[in-house]
Amino acid sequence: MNQSLKQIHEYIDEHLGEHIERIKEFVRIPSIAAENPEGVRRCAQKLANYFEELGCKKVEIVETAGQPVVYAHYDAQARNTLLVYLMYDVKQVSGEKWTLTDDPFDPKLVELPPFKKVLVGRGAINSKGPLVAFLNALFSIKACGEEIPVNLKFVAEGEEELGSAHLKDFIKHRIEELKDAQACFSPSASQNIKGEVTLSLGCKGVVEFELECSGESWGRGPTVRPIHSSMAAAVESPIWRMIHALASMTDPRDPMKVVIEGFYDNVAPPTKEDLELVEKLAQTYDEKAIAEELGVKHFYNDLKGKDLLLKMLYSTTLNIQGIQAGYTGPLFKTVLPEKIVVKMESRLVPNQTTTETVEKIRKHLDKLGYTDIKINEYPEANGVDDWSRTSPKAGIVQAVIEAYREYGFEPRVWPFSLGSSPQAIFTKDPLKLPFVSAGLSHGARAHAPDEYYVIEGNEKVKGLAHAEKFFVSLLYKLGERALR
Amino acid sequence: MNQSLKQIHEYIDEHLGEHIERIKEFVRIPSIAAENPEGVRRCAQKLANYFEELGCKKVEIVETAGQPVVYAHYDAQARNTLLVYLMYDVKQVSGEKWTLTDDPFDPKLVELPPFKKVLVGRGAINSKGPLVAFLNALFSIKACGEEIPVNLKFVAEGEEELGSAHLKDFIKHRIEELKDAQACFSPSASQNIKGEVTLSLGCKGVVEFELECSGESWGRGPTVRPIHSSMAAAVESPIWRMIHALASMTDPRDPMKVVIEGFYDNVAPPTKEDLELVEKLAQTYDEKAIAEELGVKHFYNDLKGKDLLLKMLYSTTLNIQGIQAGYTGPLFKTVLPEKIVVKMESRLVPNQTTTETVEKIRKHLDKLGYTDIKINEYPEANGVDDWSRTSPKAGIVQAVIEAYREYGFEPRVWPFSLGSSPQAIFTKDPLKLPFVSAGLSHGARAHAPDEYYVIEGNEKVKGLAHAEKFFVSLLYKLGERALR
Repeated sequence: MNQSLKQIHEYIDEHLGEHIERIKEFVRIPSIAAENPEGVRRCAQKLANYFEELGCKKVEIVETAGQPVVYAHYDAQARNTLLVYLMYDVKQVSGEKWTLTDDPFDPKLVELPPFKKVLVGRGAINSKGPLVAFLNALFSIKACGEEIPVNLKFVAEGEEELGSAHLKDFIKHRIEELKDAQACFSPSASQNIKGEVTLSLGCKGVVEFELECSGESWGRGPTVRPIHSSMAAAVESPIWRMIHALASMTDPRDPMKVVIEGFYDNVAPPTKEDLELVEKLAQTYDEKAIAEELGVKHFYNDLKGKDLLLKMLYSTTLNIQGIQAGYTGPLFKTVLPEKIVVKMESRLVPNQTTTETVEKIRKHLDKLGYTDIKINEYPEANGVDDWSRTSPKAGIVQAVIEAYREYGFEPRVWPFSLGSSPQAIFTKDPLKLPFVSAGLSHGARAHAPDEYYVIEGNEKVKGLAHAEKFFVSLLYKLGERALR
Repeated sequence: MNQSLKQIHEYIDEHLGEHIERIKEFVRIPSIAAENPEGVRRCAQKLANYFEELGCKKVEIVETAGQPVVYAHYDAQARNTLLVYLMYDVKQVSGEKWTLTDDPFDPKLVELPPFKKVLVGRGAINSKGPLVAFLNALFSIKACGEEIPVNLKFVAEGEEELGSAHLKDFIKHRIEELKDAQACFSPSASQNIKGEVTLSLGCKGVVEFELECSGESWGRGPTVRPIHSSMAAAVESPIWRMIHALASMTDPRDPMKVVIEGFYDNVAPPTKEDLELVEKLAQTYDEKAIAEELGVKHFYNDLKGKDLLLKMLYSTTLNIQGIQAGYTGPLFKTVLPEKIVVKMESRLVPNQTTTETVEKIRKHLDKLGYTDIKINEYPEANGVDDWSRTSPKAGIVQAVIEAYREYGFEPRVWPFSLGSSPQAIFTKDPLKLPFVSAGLSHGARAHAPDEYYVIEGNEKVKGLAHAEKFFVSLLYKLGERALR
């Protein structure tokens, strides 16, 4: 370790109390995107203040059609420019029963075995803890009289929890300022509770939509409101209509198989690079532990190891999230309902587009005469993310893997994650950047009571000091090589 | 009209204020079967007091496994004995917005066009208004020094709104006391808003049940709780399983046709007597008005008149009341649900049994391998009523029709109603009585806010005085002829 790095690490150890205080200060601001625009704005201002304090050349709170983006440019006169993606909003807390703090916005430091000290509060892990840890790392570099090794362009959004609806617009409008970035980084805490580190080089896409069958649209059955079910002898049912429309979409003998024409046409097989990653992943992939954690007794066809991973990664899906129709209270109510709404979702894999699934379903329904069944999408609010991929050969990926190894961790590298995120905003047109999210430490219970971020870990899970030191080490690596 | 009848009618006119007060007094008692056992008991006691006041030989508040039955025997030393079925409980009011009275249990007399005076309150029409009107008629006969023309055995239950779960038991235990009754009568207000009188000689039956498909029971899919839908690529869905199980039960080209083996086997065609009634009904049946009221644009196959009536009356059904599965809140939630519950119902017609439908569905599911899909029934609480028929030739039916005609009404006689009720408790084993529900006046909004009972009607709809006079006239007719 070179001298300045050592000095910075020491600085972090010595100032950890202040660093924790900075996280608490940030968690205290109730920046609930769905409910508290004033809190969101206060949080945007606080973040802008941090960027000013850091010495950013330019700090802006940029209005969007939704919550503001905080944009900042730190010019280190360095060779490389890194786009840093952050979110400063949090999920709502209503209805949650917290036990480790009275108020989710009054963060507490508590022991939570197997961890000596965790910070409990809304946003602790998602994502204020890692965000401030990254800022702490930057402050520490500067405090030691060193220059940050890369130029930084921060893009911090205030509505990730609402589906990042206006982030794409922001990027589009600011493309001239952003296009010199060579990679995009998002600080996180990527250790699981056992200390294992996961690195996902992308994500699946998702398209969410509702199917709605109503008497109003159909022109048959009850068209206004539910009617008494004694009339069901002579009045048709939108629910039965929907049941048959749904049943036509998958194979009755194996509903995992979608029988909509062309549904799988654009699903690409794994690349050679992918297969290598999957082979390696399979060596440590413990499907039994995962099944147990999920409460699942059998995976599809009782697949295991590599076969299970391939099935999970390279499958598009047609999942029913929920169905709402008619009476659902206690016991019974003699009604013939006028409407049924089915919430559905398809996970998208390379090379599917975000629009083809709904188009194919529309065509399928029309072909069978279900022209009245509506497909409701809410792309402005929620429900559409493109898939994203970053090559394992990208410089930033190699730098992250090296940094992890320096800290004693061999990351489990997924070609992409099974979940979805707005990553494609950075990895596809117009930016086309490699995107990596990384960091040491651990946290859990995002969107749930007693959300926490590990401050003082154990032998396997690193605490805040190491998380910050890791970011410092990584930044030095990112200054030294091509990032693409 | 004979002298004593005339005198009684005059008495009713003169004492109408007191009679209205008696209804209000009874409506004030919050006898909500589902929520207020104390109110139910207070109401039972009040009813018992009325029976005492009337001079009943025997008055008993009989405990059951649920709410008590008030039983009373009025011995008029008459030739005929009439069983009088009453309910003294009411539906809950929570969540309802009443506008015509501040408190559903503080009944108000208001003008409600086209009616000069209606009584508004919970239970006004269902069924405290007609119940007390019938008692008022009896009190009036006695007040004029006359004897009631028939012996009366009152059976008043306090849990009709909970499905009359213990009424059958009561009848069984008291069969020795009840078996000399020749007919069963239930006072009602059978005029619609236009003044037309309907007389239904029975009812359809109903069997309600849930189909439940869960990972827990299936052993596949999520078995404990919903899991993240990113796993849907390799974990099966109980919802899709249920969709196909349901779809197998009806014809996709015409879901009104149930394709479960033997489903229609015991559906009897209309008798010659029925066909005559239906022919007559069709002359005044206004399907357009009914469709409009229901918000239905097309009946099945655009049937009309007699054909529509035959379809409605002589069809068993397989209706979906509601479906609850997974996430049903705003927008979307990325879950793969662990369970789906479908509330279903079949209306039963002669000669179906109350058990055959569920048996056939069970067999159907098992045959297709859906042995894990559960059928939940709650017969003790709700959901099972046998169909019931009373011959149009029964003496009590003829007496009711004559009484209506005396008051200027030609009743529309249905062989049985499309809805269901616990009538079979009286018309089948062990009592096997003809059963008729009848009365003048009108009321509406049962189980809904601003429930009312007409006190002062108009040219077509009779008010309380006529309702009571009708009961008196009917009682005299019932004293004069064989009732079976």
